[in-house]
Amino acid sequence: MANYVIAVHCGAGYHSRQKEEAYKTLCKSICLKVCHMLEKGSEAVECVTEAVKLLEDSKLTNAGRGSSLNIRGCVECDASIMEGKKLLFGAVGAISGVQNPIEVSAMLINRQLGEKLSLGRLHPSVLVGEGASQWAVANGIHKVDPRLLITDESQKTYNNHKRKLDSHNQKVSKKRKIDHQSDDKSEEIEDLQEEKDVVQDTVGAVVMDTRGNIASAVSSGGISLKQPGRLGPAAIYGAGCWAYNQRPGKPGVGTVTSGSGEHIIRTVLARECAMSIQRENNASLGLSQGFKQSLLESEFLSEEEEKYAGVLALVHNEDNTAEVLWGHTTDSMCVGYMSSSLKKPKVVMSRLPTGGVPGKSFTMLGMPV
Amino acid sequence: MANYVIAVHCGAGYHSRQKEEAYKTLCKSICLKVCHMLEKGSEAVECVTEAVKLLEDSKLTNAGRGSSLNIRGCVECDASIMEGKKLLFGAVGAISGVQNPIEVSAMLINRQLGEKLSLGRLHPSVLVGEGASQWAVANGIHKVDPRLLITDESQKTYNNHKRKLDSHNQKVSKKRKIDHQSDDKSEEIEDLQEEKDVVQDTVGAVVMDTRGNIASAVSSGGISLKQPGRLGPAAIYGAGCWAYNQRPGKPGVGTVTSGSGEHIIRTVLARECAMSIQRENNASLGLSQGFKQSLLESEFLSEEEEKYAGVLALVHNEDNTAEVLWGHTTDSMCVGYMSSSLKKPKVVMSRLPTGGVPGKSFTMLGMPV
Repeated sequence: MANYVIAVHCGAGYHSRQKEEAYKTLCKSICLKVCHMLEKGSEAVECVTEAVKLLEDSKLTNAGRGSSLNIRGCVECDASIMEGKKLLFGAVGAISGVQNPIEVSAMLINRQLGEKLSLGRLHPSVLVGEGASQWAVANGIHKVDPRLLITDESQKTYNNHKRKLDSHNQKVSKKRKIDHQSDDKSEEIEDLQEEKDVVQDTVGAVVMDTRGNIASAVSSGGISLKQPGRLGPAAIYGAGCWAYNQRPGKPGVGTVTSGSGEHIIRTVLARECAMSIQRENNASLGLSQGFKQSLLESEFLSEEEEKYAGVLALVHNEDNTAEVLWGHTTDSMCVGYMSSSLKKPKVVMSRLPTGGVPGKSFTMLGMPV
Repeated sequence: MANYVIAVHCGAGYHSRQKEEAYKTLCKSICLKVCHMLEKGSEAVECVTEAVKLLEDSKLTNAGRGSSLNIRGCVECDASIMEGKKLLFGAVGAISGVQNPIEVSAMLINRQLGEKLSLGRLHPSVLVGEGASQWAVANGIHKVDPRLLITDESQKTYNNHKRKLDSHNQKVSKKRKIDHQSDDKSEEIEDLQEEKDVVQDTVGAVVMDTRGNIASAVSSGGISLKQPGRLGPAAIYGAGCWAYNQRPGKPGVGTVTSGSGEHIIRTVLARECAMSIQRENNASLGLSQGFKQSLLESEFLSEEEEKYAGVLALVHNEDNTAEVLWGHTTDSMCVGYMSSSLKKPKVVMSRLPTGGVPGKSFTMLGMPV
């Protein structure tokens, strides 16, 4: 029986074999560090913030430093936290110039836990854009030069994508100009989704502390070449993360999602998977049902051929056992977890089995912790 | 049996008797104008956009022109649309410098209905802040001087609220300075919520067109003295509006919400009420159950003494009858509706019955249309 659990993932997408060890090492080191905090009695929100902070600081992930760049070549991040005791939510969206967006989300939660604002005003739960950065700085978060969040690799990827986009646009405008449509069909249609090892999505972590409090957190730089101001699921309530402490008759659950943003938003995936687990009162069945009904067979995505998503879940059963589960329709998902019962962190690079079709097939695994 | 329906409301909050006629006249004129469009065959998204545009343009409402001002004295708006056929959603949040935020949301929906972006990129569904304004302008929306969205009345209210806040802050800092706590208890605690006829919330409309397509839309200037960048329910998926066309075995539903933002976000109120109506397959029972379970008895708001919200719903039953329903825990809610079967618009200033306690009691009414 676990007194505390940490589960972390560094994106559901495509992870090259070449970098597999680096991803695993990252997940492992986060599990070790956060377990140390949990052992000392740190709280779920604090621990999950630290886990995501470490993911943001890594150049390997599309979150914080090293995020995908938007169409203007800038970093704009989304991040949110939900905590399962009072069921509070804090999110920032399209935020620039802070090193760790997740810290701002944690601060939004902490403000809600405190007293109301003067004159009976409620604390905000979601802050976006310039207003979010200003609030962060006014509340003691260190402002950083936005250029410091760009890595050599994210700049290289941007240049490559931008070149493709410009050349595509040039072709289109040329075609229009000469009004000549003879051999259009043979034109290669490029797709950024097909860029291997480039599209890494939202990262996340779920924690249960020694008091049984569950907290979930996600962070993302969003999609490459996105429109400035675009919000992804990591900023949207119910889409990116969900947390709910164990209560009489209901298991505790924390979920975090990753994958194709608009699909995850429209299916409110984190919330739906968590609720499915609670409804079934059986973690594996609940997650697979949630995945199937809420994503693969969703009437909200009936026009979409492929649905890319991954979910990491932590379940605190009524008999006080705990489980960590993950499932994905993406090529791969890199997951790490550790608990008071496990001697060392477990790290898994989960890949779709042979014959599986990304965006259509679904693989899932659950482990007692 | 109605071929088309429009239902509109200008906020759930407190409406003074003095301005009652003005609110009713506004709702009435919108119903007439939109019914004219519906009669001519205009589509649900277009009609609901027009309805909310007219609400935004009115100085009476807290949306578009005349919005509550944020702590810096500026207008920042949220607006969203959901359509019930393909279940698409478009939202803008914390947007400045556009006359009609709802037009930008409509444009986001229309883009999603069209082709994908180049290089396989998906169209965004939610845009916020400066990026949202820039996208709007780049897509042909006229930019306006943000000061033109401020009315004499909204400026006066801001000055009044700001003075109260400054004086409150001064008192607090003085108290700290002299470290003297003798007669603090007698200090009057002011609450902006108690300002009568000032706090008007999100406005909204629901439409069913002659093809049976349902669309819902909401718009809001948010709370007075809000932090810049704060997102309210009118920008958040599932919170402000929901729409779902009639399908075999399921009635069609459109809902829009208004009231205390953070409460509506955390209970995903528009979505939950719509789903409750579909689950019960009985509009009145479904809405009252939804209100009770999702709001009044919500475990997400267990620490909140008072829960302020209003919901306007349009239901398209399987036997092709239609109903318009509204319910609120706020003092009042001003609703107008009209359909192909009604000769003229009906307008109701719904008020909590005598003995009802705002934030705790709930009143509801449903009408066949």
